[in-house]
Amino acid sequence: MIIRVGIFGYGNLGKGVECALRQNADMELVGIFTRRDPKTVQSMTGAPVYPASEAEAFRDRIDVMIVCGGSATDLPVLTGKLASVFSVVDSFDTHDDIPEHFAAVDASAKEAGHVALISGGWDPGIFSIMRLYGEVFLPDGQTDTFWGPGVSQGHSDAVRRIPGVLDARQYTLPVDASVRQVREGRMPELTPRLKHRRLCYVVAEEGADLEKIRTQIVTMPHYFEGYDTQVVFISQEEMNREHSRLPHGGFVFRTGRTGLRFTQRETMEFGLHLDSNPEFTGSVLCALARGVYRLVQRGESGCRTVFDLPPAYLSPLSDAELRAKLL
Amino acid sequence: MIIRVGIFGYGNLGKGVECALRQNADMELVGIFTRRDPKTVQSMTGAPVYPASEAEAFRDRIDVMIVCGGSATDLPVLTGKLASVFSVVDSFDTHDDIPEHFAAVDASAKEAGHVALISGGWDPGIFSIMRLYGEVFLPDGQTDTFWGPGVSQGHSDAVRRIPGVLDARQYTLPVDASVRQVREGRMPELTPRLKHRRLCYVVAEEGADLEKIRTQIVTMPHYFEGYDTQVVFISQEEMNREHSRLPHGGFVFRTGRTGLRFTQRETMEFGLHLDSNPEFTGSVLCALARGVYRLVQRGESGCRTVFDLPPAYLSPLSDAELRAKLL
Repeated sequence: MIIRVGIFGYGNLGKGVECALRQNADMELVGIFTRRDPKTVQSMTGAPVYPASEAEAFRDRIDVMIVCGGSATDLPVLTGKLASVFSVVDSFDTHDDIPEHFAAVDASAKEAGHVALISGGWDPGIFSIMRLYGEVFLPDGQTDTFWGPGVSQGHSDAVRRIPGVLDARQYTLPVDASVRQVREGRMPELTPRLKHRRLCYVVAEEGADLEKIRTQIVTMPHYFEGYDTQVVFISQEEMNREHSRLPHGGFVFRTGRTGLRFTQRETMEFGLHLDSNPEFTGSVLCALARGVYRLVQRGESGCRTVFDLPPAYLSPLSDAELRAKLL
Repeated sequence: MIIRVGIFGYGNLGKGVECALRQNADMELVGIFTRRDPKTVQSMTGAPVYPASEAEAFRDRIDVMIVCGGSATDLPVLTGKLASVFSVVDSFDTHDDIPEHFAAVDASAKEAGHVALISGGWDPGIFSIMRLYGEVFLPDGQTDTFWGPGVSQGHSDAVRRIPGVLDARQYTLPVDASVRQVREGRMPELTPRLKHRRLCYVVAEEGADLEKIRTQIVTMPHYFEGYDTQVVFISQEEMNREHSRLPHGGFVFRTGRTGLRFTQRETMEFGLHLDSNPEFTGSVLCALARGVYRLVQRGESGCRTVFDLPPAYLSPLSDAELRAKLL
């Protein structure tokens, strides 16, 4: 049984999904849908590229559409709309807005009889599952999530919007000493500043007031205020040469107490080290698309998250094979 | 809604479950069932202790029975038998015999209309889930599981069976250099000897031939042959003082390649560091009992494993709470 997949949106994430689909023998890429002029878009693997406006015509030829757009403006509109035509997967990652996004997508998917999985990827996604497992396996404890070292697109974009900035790349770095304390099971109380620091590489316009740019960065509310931020001005050449990749990663820790007098300490640690954030995220979305397909086969409809998918649904192997091979 | 739980078998694991149940407000311990004379058994928390032979009378008073026995002789008989009376959870951990155990328990549970979850705990259990997630999120890659540092009961028992040995404790230790290679994403090929080494503390009878005991240990097929094993003879006093705890842990790594030319490397790492193996395992079994209860409520029956449980089923929180708080 081949699962027929479409990719809606063809940026870094869409390309990651395209690459990952070749590593899943039970999946087939039907087409890539772009809002740009398809004539200007060449897919990496030779898969056909269609205009977004024609997607609906593929209603019966695509089992799961993977929606690859930004969480700020794309996905809040796109996922719900596409869920009325297809079963879908997205990677909506604005944590605070998940309940609202869920409600909208759920209504659309239910009405059309489709399954929509939102907020897939690694955070939200795999890290969310790890936080849940941490809480249920060690109910009396503390959870700590660290991100990085890695490039934050949101923070990079925020720096790029400052007048006088031509290009910027922001690395989020976990504070090693704090990671160590958590790993040792010491359950420290950590402020945002004690958990992460920020490192910005910035290309400034010639003649720009560098000190003013620096101040605007390090005092920016929500993004940099409250963190130790280092700003390094570099040339566009160095930016292109040294900072074109998109590594990322992080850790989820759960430390808990067990025993009659709660004196024993148990620590669960999950870590990711990614050369390519979009390629890994794309690979995760493919496995989740398989899970969505299983739910569809079971006759389900509506919005779901990674919390709702039995691990077995993500694998192409049968239950008996999984038990024999991986249990 | 309170989930009414029973504990069948009251060794280290049963005590771990007893302690953990107090950390789950939606669960209640109805009773402990022992094959010893209940008059000789005092529970840690004051929970009532009943003879195993009376368990069946609790058919309507227990939602999930957690079966705490050994995998060698207890569980192959007990779990299937109890599944005809209760929905059950066990921690059957003889990997090779899982298909056979599954089939027997499945038949019993289906006939009675109960749900039975077998092979819960951390390996098999959480580590199994991590191996599955590793394979599905990085289909082109390598999985490595390391155990320890920790006490292996099976290996300790094997040493104790050698003539002249009064007591023994075997620690399984991951080979640090190999763990480092795997963590760096180098995908080394590792023989059993390169993955783990073994350290035995042994109390010998007075006048025993220590060199003969040492040789019998390090050449023992299946258990020690093929590993670097260190044997240290100590007094019973030192054994009692230094080696009475049951720490354990380990790592599951998945390293995979992504991208158009498979040149990017992504690593997933899950680690456990446990002061008390039975207390943590007991805590895991409690969360799995909640999952079993959910399956029962959905009208399911038959044998299941951790692969079949959506993460959300393990939590006392509602789906909306999980999405708002942990996603």
